[in-house]
Amino acid sequence: MGVVIDGCPAGLSLKSYHIQEALDRRRPGQSNLTTARTEKDQVEILSGVFEDKTLGSPITLLIRNQDARPEDYNHLKEVYRPSHADYTYLKKYGHRDPRGGGRASARETACRVAAGAVAKRILDYLDIDVYAFTHQIGQVVLEDTTVDYSSIEQHPTRCPNPSIADAMQQAIESAKSEGDSLGGVIECHIRGLPVGLGQPVFHRFEADLAFAMLSINASKSFEVGSGKAGTKMKGSEHNDPFTIEKDKVATTTNFSGGVQGGITNGMPVTFKVGFKPTATIQKPQQSIDQQGEKAIVEGKGRHDPCVIPRAVPIVEAMANLVTVDHILLAQSDTMEQIDLKQ
Amino acid sequence: MGVVIDGCPAGLSLKSYHIQEALDRRRPGQSNLTTARTEKDQVEILSGVFEDKTLGSPITLLIRNQDARPEDYNHLKEVYRPSHADYTYLKKYGHRDPRGGGRASARETACRVAAGAVAKRILDYLDIDVYAFTHQIGQVVLEDTTVDYSSIEQHPTRCPNPSIADAMQQAIESAKSEGDSLGGVIECHIRGLPVGLGQPVFHRFEADLAFAMLSINASKSFEVGSGKAGTKMKGSEHNDPFTIEKDKVATTTNFSGGVQGGITNGMPVTFKVGFKPTATIQKPQQSIDQQGEKAIVEGKGRHDPCVIPRAVPIVEAMANLVTVDHILLAQSDTMEQIDLKQ
Amino acid sequence: MGVVIDGCPAGLSLKSYHIQEALDRRRPGQSNLTTARTEKDQVEILSGVFEDKTLGSPITLLIRNQDARPEDYNHLKEVYRPSHADYTYLKKYGHRDPRGGGRASARETACRVAAGAVAKRILDYLDIDVYAFTHQIGQVVLEDTTVDYSSIEQHPTRCPNPSIADAMQQAIESAKSEGDSLGGVIECHIRGLPVGLGQPVFHRFEADLAFAMLSINASKSFEVGSGKAGTKMKGSEHNDPFTIEKDKVATTTNFSGGVQGGITNGMPVTFKVGFKPTATIQKPQQSIDQQGEKAIVEGKGRHDPCVIPRAVPIVEAMANLVTVDHILLAQSDTMEQIDLKQ
Amino acid sequence: MGVVIDGCPAGLSLKSYHIQEALDRRRPGQSNLTTARTEKDQVEILSGVFEDKTLGSPITLLIRNQDARPEDYNHLKEVYRPSHADYTYLKKYGHRDPRGGGRASARETACRVAAGAVAKRILDYLDIDVYAFTHQIGQVVLEDTTVDYSSIEQHPTRCPNPSIADAMQQAIESAKSEGDSLGGVIECHIRGLPVGLGQPVFHRFEADLAFAMLSINASKSFEVGSGKAGTKMKGSEHNDPFTIEKDKVATTTNFSGGVQGGITNGMPVTFKVGFKPTATIQKPQQSIDQQGEKAIVEGKGRHDPCVIPRAVPIVEAMANLVTVDHILLAQSDTMEQIDLKQ
Repeated sequence: MGVVIDGCPAGLSLKSYHIQEALDRRRPGQSNLTTARTEKDQVEILSGVFEDKTLGSPITLLIRNQDARPEDYNHLKEVYRPSHADYTYLKKYGHRDPRGGGRASARETACRVAAGAVAKRILDYLDIDVYAFTHQIGQVVLEDTTVDYSSIEQHPTRCPNPSIADAMQQAIESAKSEGDSLGGVIECHIRGLPVGLGQPVFHRFEADLAFAMLSINASKSFEVGSGKAGTKMKGSEHNDPFTIEKDKVATTTNFSGGVQGGITNGMPVTFKVGFKPTATIQKPQQSIDQQGEKAIVEGKGRHDPCVIPRAVPIVEAMANLVTVDHILLAQSDTMEQIDLKQ
Repeated sequence: MGVVIDGCPAGLSLKSYHIQEALDRRRPGQSNLTTARTEKDQVEILSGVFEDKTLGSPITLLIRNQDARPEDYNHLKEVYRPSHADYTYLKKYGHRDPRGGGRASARETACRVAAGAVAKRILDYLDIDVYAFTHQIGQVVLEDTTVDYSSIEQHPTRCPNPSIADAMQQAIESAKSEGDSLGGVIECHIRGLPVGLGQPVFHRFEADLAFAMLSINASKSFEVGSGKAGTKMKGSEHNDPFTIEKDKVATTTNFSGGVQGGITNGMPVTFKVGFKPTATIQKPQQSIDQQGEKAIVEGKGRHDPCVIPRAVPIVEAMANLVTVDHILLAQSDTMEQIDLKQ
Repeated sequence: MGVVIDGCPAGLSLKSYHIQEALDRRRPGQSNLTTARTEKDQVEILSGVFEDKTLGSPITLLIRNQDARPEDYNHLKEVYRPSHADYTYLKKYGHRDPRGGGRASARETACRVAAGAVAKRILDYLDIDVYAFTHQIGQVVLEDTTVDYSSIEQHPTRCPNPSIADAMQQAIESAKSEGDSLGGVIECHIRGLPVGLGQPVFHRFEADLAFAMLSINASKSFEVGSGKAGTKMKGSEHNDPFTIEKDKVATTTNFSGGVQGGITNGMPVTFKVGFKPTATIQKPQQSIDQQGEKAIVEGKGRHDPCVIPRAVPIVEAMANLVTVDHILLAQSDTMEQIDLKQ
Repeated sequence: MGVVIDGCPAGLSLKSYHIQEALDRRRPGQSNLTTARTEKDQVEILSGVFEDKTLGSPITLLIRNQDARPEDYNHLKEVYRPSHADYTYLKKYGHRDPRGGGRASARETACRVAAGAVAKRILDYLDIDVYAFTHQIGQVVLEDTTVDYSSIEQHPTRCPNPSIADAMQQAIESAKSEGDSLGGVIECHIRGLPVGLGQPVFHRFEADLAFAMLSINASKSFEVGSGKAGTKMKGSEHNDPFTIEKDKVATTTNFSGGVQGGITNGMPVTFKVGFKPTATIQKPQQSIDQQGEKAIVEGKGRHDPCVIPRAVPIVEAMANLVTVDHILLAQSDTMEQIDLKQ
């Protein structure tokens, strides 16, 4: 697998371990809540970096598969797995990659995490922080309104409230023991953003976030700020009153989720992404084969009983990328910013 | 206001009234549930069409404002309206368009509706139908699992269930009488789609839909298929079993919402879009002015107490555009499709 | 006709006459060397500018045709004019716009000139100058190595050397009296550029210029720096030695034409664009009609016996646009340039 | 080095040797006319192909350097080589890749050749042929109006006329023995094209060709059809009369070079690309170093005394890519072409 990043400014300090750390948070086999497949996801920087500095030319990152077991999929060659891409792929491209899903496989998200780690280097330089964490797994929901970000990595579920996290873990283990799977919701906060990222019509900040999040495998929903709950509020409750806080314009509430008219307002950008339960389960399922005959799908491959813990760094990576894209776009918003650098 | 559509195939039959009909569904003043501003939203086709056929060159549509009252906004020149784009605009672009919001105004969506009407002509030709309707207004929710599409336009709320629709209307009228506003949710079904629209990573069908929907003013959430509710289901409940129906591959349930692995599977594409309550209300609100001093915003302009009824044709228009884009993209999925037309 | 400019920074001072001046240099009927069609080419700014400042939102400019005479083309409805786009259009789009060429008409270049005038405002602010002038008409060639830019507009041919210019004018008048037409070459110098515009592979500065110039109607060739003549030189003659001039790095010759490795080096960017003789002539020509039968094309419409004088401002406009695009792109070349504007 | 090709239709038959054959025509060390550097340029297909068929997903090709000698460049670390990109790179990106030019190196063109070989597979399928050949080296010019394409590969110069080819070879050898270098011109014919590729304004076929050709290292000029010579002709001489040939519309001459109004007319597309003499020469040259002090550049690295023979397959590759892009774009020119593939 590989990823090419074009448009990264030159002179950014970047070492392999910056990327590797991020990949390690996503990689399989990190706890008993994830698939047993063990991929080290070692990243190799093929181009674009010299002596730990970006060159301004495209950055190519390569991650080689090591523990692929295409034979695990042999029994599936002829059957359409329910809620997988086997059927749609075959009809769209006239073929079906029999090796674990091919480009439709969620392994592809490793590339997003790698690219997101490069984007994070730019955000670090600008003191912008992105924190994703687990908000819901199955029926277990985190209701806390304040979050201790330093607790996120303390638990394999990546939920920052330890007791809720334990309940989530139990839910996953219980589903796993039944050969079943769970879905859930990830919340994400982007803090330290300037006012003015995003455009009013064609590249609204929240629209680009929605696009990025719905492009992650298994995602089903996106909400910014008050989200779906906000649709039941009245205008007088939902509007965020402006105020001055520490000499800066702020709002006393943040139902807007840090975005007004498609443009960031300096408050934290907050959003939630929902994921369906993993489609691969151990229970046998009714389906059809390529000839249209009834067939049973037996669950054999290795898979995650719940994608949420490993999807946290993916959501974070995509948020990093969207944010950096908008920072670069915003470099020429006004004539005052334009200069010739010499 | 204007819109330019590039890439529309030549030879499409297109008359002004095809566009006007769609605009009439969006235009203000169509019922007592909407703003009192009366714009006829007459469309003028400036280019790209000759003798009622598209030419293959860019189609330019123009809609002139008639009932703008910039003086209605005079009292707001110095104050930031809560949950509006006044502040973010000023900081991003260094100015503030004092005439009703400028490009941040929802009047801009008339252009989307006009462009969507052109896209609809292509969908009509291909027997693809897009139906948006009101699913929720304030606390009133349509729980029906089947929908009579022909009822949508029978009620000013655009909710197809008459009794729920009446309850929604009362909710809006009640909020209006309090000088307040409501939000809600619009559902949309795309029917008759081929298998194979959308790409596995960069242009997933649902990601492009999410992008399009979150780019509509006041939208806060997007859900495809089972959406957020699906995140609480188990894999064994949520997976859609394949079957054969009328000699075609189908699924017995449609929690996937017609998309698997980013690619349409031939089932109806179903999604929901949530909208916040209208930010402009008649109640006075606390805010600050451009000097950072406390100030009261008084609600004077004309506005919709609930955007949902008028947003239905906007959601539909954006769905039309995304669908046609994907149909055009899919014309070269496989070598078998490529031909030289002579 | 209209043009939409997206991405122009906010806060640029822009008045109608900035655009009108440029259009007046291109418009027909300005001398006896050009077509007798008299279009005022009055520009109307429809959006994106308020109180003479750009808003950051798309700028829409509209120019209405006034002296179109579609009836002049009636006798051509069925015949393919040689070296015109009638035939290719019909085969590509399945129709033929019978009104003077439609989108294939060179009238479309008025939009380029209008957009280029907006770009020029940015270049003015940055002290970058673009000068195009006539280098050759028919067989008459300007051999001068230095050019008095202030003389360009002193002669209807836009050749800065008065005696050469007179010879060019005679050549045009002679061709016109024969019912024939001439081609020629325009040279252009971009002065005051910073070092560092352009990219090494995907958007080389000269490649973007070539693309822009070959997109102008009737253009047949593009040369940068030494151009085609340079292909006959030896490396030891052609290489531009570096030196220091007024404390700045410079080269003693400029065969490179101001671009090395796709990137500007601070020397003037110099290039030439060749144009074929006008395809519309008064002499009768052999052709075929849409049924494939032999037919005679009689020259009736109004046209320029030589496009060069009016193409000078078009070349300039396209150079303006390419230069500004690259200035905007170069705002995030290095991390040192990135800032958050607040 | 690597290249990623996105948008290639699925189901194209593609084997490594299709790409390798093309790379072998470009690789260094193929004759005494080229650099002594010996790179095998072995291509590795990393993704997008399975069992010799394209999958529809991005195709990634990797070529590893083997005979790089970065130490050859050590003596140049501080000096700007004339007419190289050392200086512009340093100023643009704030660094200088000391290993043979980095991304500015012409080795990058191997990727273009590899990608062009994939495009050629599509053209083969559609019976479209692209032939590039040497038209001029130094002062030696091929004046033939007809070309025996099968002779191109018979001579190391890739000039199809054997006696002219020999004179070209002598010119190169003579320049090489003087430690000097030559430039030249490559001509290219695209045969078998349908009518209707290219767009009237934004993607004229010849504009995309010009962009592609001027993006090749060392290129200085582009001419389509009659090119620069055509600018001295009269309209009555230059216009291409339409006729019927073998029941198809054709023109009796082809000064247009197969393109009218930006759109192909079914005649062969013909164009020429000029290249400057190689900047790296063995003669010592005057320059400055990074401190602005005078310095002598001594020519040590391995290089081509003339790039033309090896640039022939590069021009061909870029022409392949432009042509295929336009074929894919043209799949939705008219409504009649649109279908849903099921």
